[in-house]
Amino acid sequence: MEPSRGAGPAVPPVAAVLPAGGSGERLGGATPKQFCAVQGRPLVSYTVRAMERIDWISNIIVVVSPENIETMKSIIEKYGHKRVTVVKGGITRHRSIFNGLKVFAENEFSSHLLQKPEVVIIHDAVRPFVEEDILSKVVMAAKEHGAAGAIRPLVSTVIASAADGCLDHSLERARYRASEMPQAFLFDIIYEAYQQCTDYDLDYGTECLHLALKYCKTNAKLVEGTADLWKVTYKRDLYAAESIIKESLSQEVCVITDVKEVVSQVGFLLHESLKSQIKVETISTSLSKNDSHLQNILSGQCYNFVCINDKKCAVQETQQLADMLEKSNIPLLYPVVVVLVHLDTSENISFSIGMEEITRMKKFAKEVKKKNILVYGLLIQYKDHLLLQETVNSAAALIMALIKDRNPELTGQLLVA
Amino acid sequence: MEPSRGAGPAVPPVAAVLPAGGSGERLGGATPKQFCAVQGRPLVSYTVRAMERIDWISNIIVVVSPENIETMKSIIEKYGHKRVTVVKGGITRHRSIFNGLKVFAENEFSSHLLQKPEVVIIHDAVRPFVEEDILSKVVMAAKEHGAAGAIRPLVSTVIASAADGCLDHSLERARYRASEMPQAFLFDIIYEAYQQCTDYDLDYGTECLHLALKYCKTNAKLVEGTADLWKVTYKRDLYAAESIIKESLSQEVCVITDVKEVVSQVGFLLHESLKSQIKVETISTSLSKNDSHLQNILSGQCYNFVCINDKKCAVQETQQLADMLEKSNIPLLYPVVVVLVHLDTSENISFSIGMEEITRMKKFAKEVKKKNILVYGLLIQYKDHLLLQETVNSAAALIMALIKDRNPELTGQLLVA
Repeated sequence: MEPSRGAGPAVPPVAAVLPAGGSGERLGGATPKQFCAVQGRPLVSYTVRAMERIDWISNIIVVVSPENIETMKSIIEKYGHKRVTVVKGGITRHRSIFNGLKVFAENEFSSHLLQKPEVVIIHDAVRPFVEEDILSKVVMAAKEHGAAGAIRPLVSTVIASAADGCLDHSLERARYRASEMPQAFLFDIIYEAYQQCTDYDLDYGTECLHLALKYCKTNAKLVEGTADLWKVTYKRDLYAAESIIKESLSQEVCVITDVKEVVSQVGFLLHESLKSQIKVETISTSLSKNDSHLQNILSGQCYNFVCINDKKCAVQETQQLADMLEKSNIPLLYPVVVVLVHLDTSENISFSIGMEEITRMKKFAKEVKKKNILVYGLLIQYKDHLLLQETVNSAAALIMALIKDRNPELTGQLLVA
Repeated sequence: MEPSRGAGPAVPPVAAVLPAGGSGERLGGATPKQFCAVQGRPLVSYTVRAMERIDWISNIIVVVSPENIETMKSIIEKYGHKRVTVVKGGITRHRSIFNGLKVFAENEFSSHLLQKPEVVIIHDAVRPFVEEDILSKVVMAAKEHGAAGAIRPLVSTVIASAADGCLDHSLERARYRASEMPQAFLFDIIYEAYQQCTDYDLDYGTECLHLALKYCKTNAKLVEGTADLWKVTYKRDLYAAESIIKESLSQEVCVITDVKEVVSQVGFLLHESLKSQIKVETISTSLSKNDSHLQNILSGQCYNFVCINDKKCAVQETQQLADMLEKSNIPLLYPVVVVLVHLDTSENISFSIGMEEITRMKKFAKEVKKKNILVYGLLIQYKDHLLLQETVNSAAALIMALIKDRNPELTGQLLVA
């Protein structure tokens, strides 16, 4: 399904234009929704990332209102986005998209003309969960039909009202669809449609497929999309986006134990207890060694780590992990959870946690939080062999809660299983 | 705006029918969405509660599929819902609503005929955030026009597709609206419409306003609703509902300090630190006394409590609060957060937390969790007067995080400010 891209320059490029100029008034907040933070990162960065990871998209044009150009540029720098050009938007959606297209055709909008793509994707900056599959489907359909757009079934019945505010008629739900994003067009078609359309279209229209039909007689191919394509419109959608991202970050955990037998044993039990809820990788290694297995995991997409050892507040070992994580760039896009498990095997019955230990832990957590690494402490007591299983189950429940919540306020706390 | 309801029986009653028979296939889970737990309670219970708290709604009919009748009855019993009748649904939405209406007109569906209402509200069981304002607006409009329904602007453009899967035309967004719930009808109109409509309508239709128009020539009045009226359709909507409910429970906190001067002082500082984020009531009292101010707060809608004292793990005092809460029925519908703050004023520098203390705390928290009370411990050290403000600010941040998250897994833990 994927549009192939050979080694040579013969394959015409695909570009994406992301209108991000909206004021977000429906959200009821001062910050336009594309700049609202989700897990600490602006929503638009998630959408840019969704485009950027697809290697057959050669240029990503983000169109923002004039007052947000610097904000957008600093987002691109902070999160290391590549192949992105920021363009000044117009006062309406259509005018913004038109400006975005002009960087491929006119010298007005960028210092150098970008290579004109064969196909251009248009996608909202506030639809962060777009998958490669639907993008390649609309691109392929646009190549064949000139235009294509994702559609979804209607959630509510659509009605027309009469002048007196009463029902005129309702539409038969099955015959209609909601037009969503992404859409894709042969560049020449959509650019011509924008050049020909009226000021009324530019000021009051919203639908690109309509312009292609009206001005280029191109009937867009409609492609059924998945539910992820929804648009962040209201505050509740930001809540939903936050939860979806947290859920997607809670799919895998890496348990790192040191090589001592008793520690490995607890690591094994914890692995068993966790694996019904989350994918678990357990490795037994010293963090100071350059373990290739650990390096593999770090270069993968794991955002959760549990380090078990029998030292009180093993800050030094965790510092090594934090350094590795930082070097790997993993915490750049998403907060990484590190649960520092202290296995207490002392015989002493009246065990207690000293304030010094807690202070050291909090200080360390505060330091690495700046690097988007969330560290929590967890104590497992291993006194009674019979109680160990129960304690490990309780530890697993706490670890899952910490991973799912990713609460930055609770970092540095020491929990007890 | 509110439909008035006098003391005498002369005022005709308003009833509500909640279709709750859906299978929830769009949610992608095994449990139909109306029965999915949000903060531990099934979604349908929130919607029933939204109706039940309005005293001019005399009867609430919940229509569920045959296999869920017992589940629904047990929900009503568990959460103490009143004025609710459970009715067996049909195989489609319209057939279910029709069954719901029959309890007022036919003997077939209930042991005794319920009093026929003048106006009947129809509302989805999966729209839990409906407010009294919109309900009274649609009821008043139905009295005048015979039928009325809430509408919302369209979020996406609506398009019609041709037989070949290509765009036929797109609708001008401004001319159309999404038909949402609640709707209201003069009972005689909607009941007649259902009696006259065809099997095709009953099996394939979805819109009650359409039936009233087609069979009773009644053009429903359309009433602009707020964004809260949205329908829980996808999994992301459940996430959003959970967050909205958590947010609504995080509006107010009651800080209870004992009467000792040092404790009151910290209570005051905490009050000051919290008040920029949440409404705070602070009272200084002994929980063992029957304090009328505290009783007032308990009879209000406060779901968050902070108890400060200078005893280690003051389980006894907290037990009294837990008993009061239980008696007040507050934790019946929503989990209540209780943060037990231990103010440590000892001179001892090498302070430590004993395992016994932690174990006692966890045991107590586990016990009251069964009553939907979430207890967390929080230690504030008061050694250095200069550092106190900073510690209190840190405590306030932790308290806000605990209140907002309401994480049941972390109960019984002792956090350190």
